[in-house]
Amino acid sequence: MTITLAELARSMDAALWGEGSLRITGAAEPAEAGAARDGQARIALAMTPAYAADLAPGAAALIAEGMDPAALGLAGAVIVRRPRLAMAGLTRLLDNDGGMQQGIHPSAVIDPSALLEEGAAVGPFAVIGADVRIGAQARIGAHVSIGQGSMIGAQALIREGVRIAHGVTAGARLIVHANAVIGSDGFSFVTPEPSGVEEIRAGLGQREHISEQHWLRIHSLGSVVLGDDVEIGANVTIDRGTIRATTVGSGTKIDNQVQIGHNVRIGRDCLLCGQVGIAGSSRIGDRVVLGGKCGVSDNIFVGDDVIAGGGTNIYTNVPAGRVILGSPATRMETQVEMNKALRRLPRMAAQFAELQKTVTRLMQKD
Amino acid sequence: MTITLAELARSMDAALWGEGSLRITGAAEPAEAGAARDGQARIALAMTPAYAADLAPGAAALIAEGMDPAALGLAGAVIVRRPRLAMAGLTRLLDNDGGMQQGIHPSAVIDPSALLEEGAAVGPFAVIGADVRIGAQARIGAHVSIGQGSMIGAQALIREGVRIAHGVTAGARLIVHANAVIGSDGFSFVTPEPSGVEEIRAGLGQREHISEQHWLRIHSLGSVVLGDDVEIGANVTIDRGTIRATTVGSGTKIDNQVQIGHNVRIGRDCLLCGQVGIAGSSRIGDRVVLGGKCGVSDNIFVGDDVIAGGGTNIYTNVPAGRVILGSPATRMETQVEMNKALRRLPRMAAQFAELQKTVTRLMQKD
Amino acid sequence: MTITLAELARSMDAALWGEGSLRITGAAEPAEAGAARDGQARIALAMTPAYAADLAPGAAALIAEGMDPAALGLAGAVIVRRPRLAMAGLTRLLDNDGGMQQGIHPSAVIDPSALLEEGAAVGPFAVIGADVRIGAQARIGAHVSIGQGSMIGAQALIREGVRIAHGVTAGARLIVHANAVIGSDGFSFVTPEPSGVEEIRAGLGQREHISEQHWLRIHSLGSVVLGDDVEIGANVTIDRGTIRATTVGSGTKIDNQVQIGHNVRIGRDCLLCGQVGIAGSSRIGDRVVLGGKCGVSDNIFVGDDVIAGGGTNIYTNVPAGRVILGSPATRMETQVEMNKALRRLPRMAAQFAELQKTVTRLMQKD
Repeated sequence: MTITLAELARSMDAALWGEGSLRITGAAEPAEAGAARDGQARIALAMTPAYAADLAPGAAALIAEGMDPAALGLAGAVIVRRPRLAMAGLTRLLDNDGGMQQGIHPSAVIDPSALLEEGAAVGPFAVIGADVRIGAQARIGAHVSIGQGSMIGAQALIREGVRIAHGVTAGARLIVHANAVIGSDGFSFVTPEPSGVEEIRAGLGQREHISEQHWLRIHSLGSVVLGDDVEIGANVTIDRGTIRATTVGSGTKIDNQVQIGHNVRIGRDCLLCGQVGIAGSSRIGDRVVLGGKCGVSDNIFVGDDVIAGGGTNIYTNVPAGRVILGSPATRMETQVEMNKALRRLPRMAAQFAELQKTVTRLMQKD
Repeated sequence: MTITLAELARSMDAALWGEGSLRITGAAEPAEAGAARDGQARIALAMTPAYAADLAPGAAALIAEGMDPAALGLAGAVIVRRPRLAMAGLTRLLDNDGGMQQGIHPSAVIDPSALLEEGAAVGPFAVIGADVRIGAQARIGAHVSIGQGSMIGAQALIREGVRIAHGVTAGARLIVHANAVIGSDGFSFVTPEPSGVEEIRAGLGQREHISEQHWLRIHSLGSVVLGDDVEIGANVTIDRGTIRATTVGSGTKIDNQVQIGHNVRIGRDCLLCGQVGIAGSSRIGDRVVLGGKCGVSDNIFVGDDVIAGGGTNIYTNVPAGRVILGSPATRMETQVEMNKALRRLPRMAAQFAELQKTVTRLMQKD
Repeated sequence: MTITLAELARSMDAALWGEGSLRITGAAEPAEAGAARDGQARIALAMTPAYAADLAPGAAALIAEGMDPAALGLAGAVIVRRPRLAMAGLTRLLDNDGGMQQGIHPSAVIDPSALLEEGAAVGPFAVIGADVRIGAQARIGAHVSIGQGSMIGAQALIREGVRIAHGVTAGARLIVHANAVIGSDGFSFVTPEPSGVEEIRAGLGQREHISEQHWLRIHSLGSVVLGDDVEIGANVTIDRGTIRATTVGSGTKIDNQVQIGHNVRIGRDCLLCGQVGIAGSSRIGDRVVLGGKCGVSDNIFVGDDVIAGGGTNIYTNVPAGRVILGSPATRMETQVEMNKALRRLPRMAAQFAELQKTVTRLMQKD
């Protein structure tokens, strides 16, 4: 499965320079790519002059517009306009998914009522429940379990150990990384009499008395619905809704160890970075970006195009388009000012005490 | 497995109104439930007048005391006093656990010395170790592993991919969601000479010199003991103790991606929300509620009935009954005031600088 | 598999006192160890006088230098200089790993091209891919999957449900706890035109306009390289690099639920505590200790010997040797002062308003 430099350029809609017939066997950093040899090369990613300084003479390289392949002594080059975008095209062409299982492994336990469309692959020890439907060309890894009645779209890639519970629906080209859990029960409990948390929410922090109560479970009858082109990271957890579905819109990408509570609705084309947590019943707009470790309280709304820096804790609704940071979340520029002022606060407090004394002396003089 | 509206009302200890013979096939939001048809209905959850506005005429609904089923045009209704509590009863009655495996799947690897009590079910590819005991009616999902000598109580529900290590003891009605890990080794290391962390703890942040040292492992010989009615979320991790057991009291519910360190002792009827982390050897009282992403340092004590808002970092002991927020944790009302003051701090700092100048001028006049 | 008290003392390079022939069957807290009986005992961990107060007469105990075994009424004792260090030796000697699988279980699916060196054990339902190499005496648990071409060093211990993707390289004595994922794809996306996040980074929080764009995936062609003596906790996730490898240096220990992004490079002998997250392409020096829940932004550098308290969010480079705390991270002593000043800020703000009035009155008098 190799591709020539010319094919690479054409597939990436980029300009070719030099030996288009070079067979590209992989990609490498400039210092490690070496020169092309025997008509083969690893393509060096040298999209800035600083990176290009490490290129070996005779290398094949991906370079940016404005760089001179002849001056760099290259054997061949693909010349791109937006380097980061070019990375998407290049890496897609060179990715072989680590040689994942083809066909249906004989050890898999597949319910007779399950429907696997054309070209679907199932790895060793996978368990596919009753009435499950797996789309064409979908690949299900080893040790995956998919519960009763779930529907997985075409060309899905479900990695090893993923748990998809019953009644989950996913669109086309779903990617789920290893050991993620989709459709676990929501965390929803109630006490016979109002609990301390309910009292605090109603009474602004005041509690009348504290009684011993046990938690009764609110079972999760809802499901999870994922759009098209959703990607879900390793060890992510997405709970099913109580009555309706927890939903993730098309094009949304979810990083490792993100937790999404029951009834949450997430819009389209969002990015949720590592270890984000979204509590039950909150709603996230379209194109929202939440940096690593952001937290979102339950039952709130985060508007379209909101961007939150890493570690932001969102306790209340956020209007569309806002850029936020901190705990509790505030506008990023406000937070930066607050942080500066806080760093100076110990000194200011000392100066303030001095000023109080000075003013007291002035008053005594008066 | 359907139930009539009358049976539902009776099971929930609630009032029935209208056609008790309607067969209830599920639950739905008011806008989606539709009217009863052919003697069947999905019951609409319409426990506030606002929700009830979306009801179709002829629907079956769960409504709150004080609402008028005739005026809402219902075919039948169950009328409840505390709606959130009613959700527990209703959803329990309608939950079928997604059609989980009955009986013992032939692919499971069960040590001959393991004891499965009456009605216990074991899913495909489960691995049950030597001397394990599984209680009556317990259900063990696909791909679960249970290590040597562990004891799981009656009516447990252990979801797919859960890892229960050796020597773990759990009471009745344990629920563990997919891919959780119970009984992993504690994170406990020591250097031959005192480490930087030990120096800082002893010397308040001062370090004499920094030496290169390797970490030696303190192995975990202890176990994990879980009470009755414990629920553990997806991808949770609970480490075993070093010598004694890490313990979780009866009735405590643990949400997804919570991390509980070695030797931790958690009381009864606690709620630990998503992504909470509790470091080694800390003790949590009874009925403690920790919101999402709360962190608890090692070797501290959180008293009974403490409630912590989401994202609270607890570095020191917390007295019983306190409601806390922030990082470091402070009383919730104090934290709210601190947050307000901090937001105004940049402006106050500017005003303070002005005031300093003014006072300087006043002094010069003097 | 028992050991005598004398053998224990010798193995731990510690002093023996009393009956060296006692057979030690395990370890226990002083109150639970009881007296030796029939030549057998559980060794009590009584390394401070306070703990020793709970010892039964006739017990076998681990005590610290300076304590008197005769006065404590012991049958036998091992006397150690640095008790915490002694715990490493003692627990290692008494750990039997919960009776893990020996040999190769017949249900495992092992590619014919995989090489298992002498004494390697493989548990039930494990899946070992093409060209995998497993070192001598390594133990692979049930339900583990190891992808094509990965190399695991000698004496590794890979617990149940661990996912090691293709092309991962690990040194000797690797320990990985249950359900961890090593080598998942990085979280790396690009939009056709610059995205909101790129605009903010370039323009300090200002966004010109917001356009609808879809995320294109940058595939991960790189790998993961782990040194010797690395330990990785339960449900950890470590992403593979984009082109080069994500690396973890020898002797580094990683606690449960830690997330390590693509291209991250971690030095030697670090401790990363529970729920730490490190974003893509950041570099962590040697002997760095990150407390629970610390976050590290992408593309930054944390110097050698840095120690960060729990919950620290690191947004910018940190010089070597610094001890930090807070969000954003500041020197620990500065953070402690800031926290104190912030607690007093609401009162100071009220006093400041008073002082403003006072000065205004003084000026009016003038």
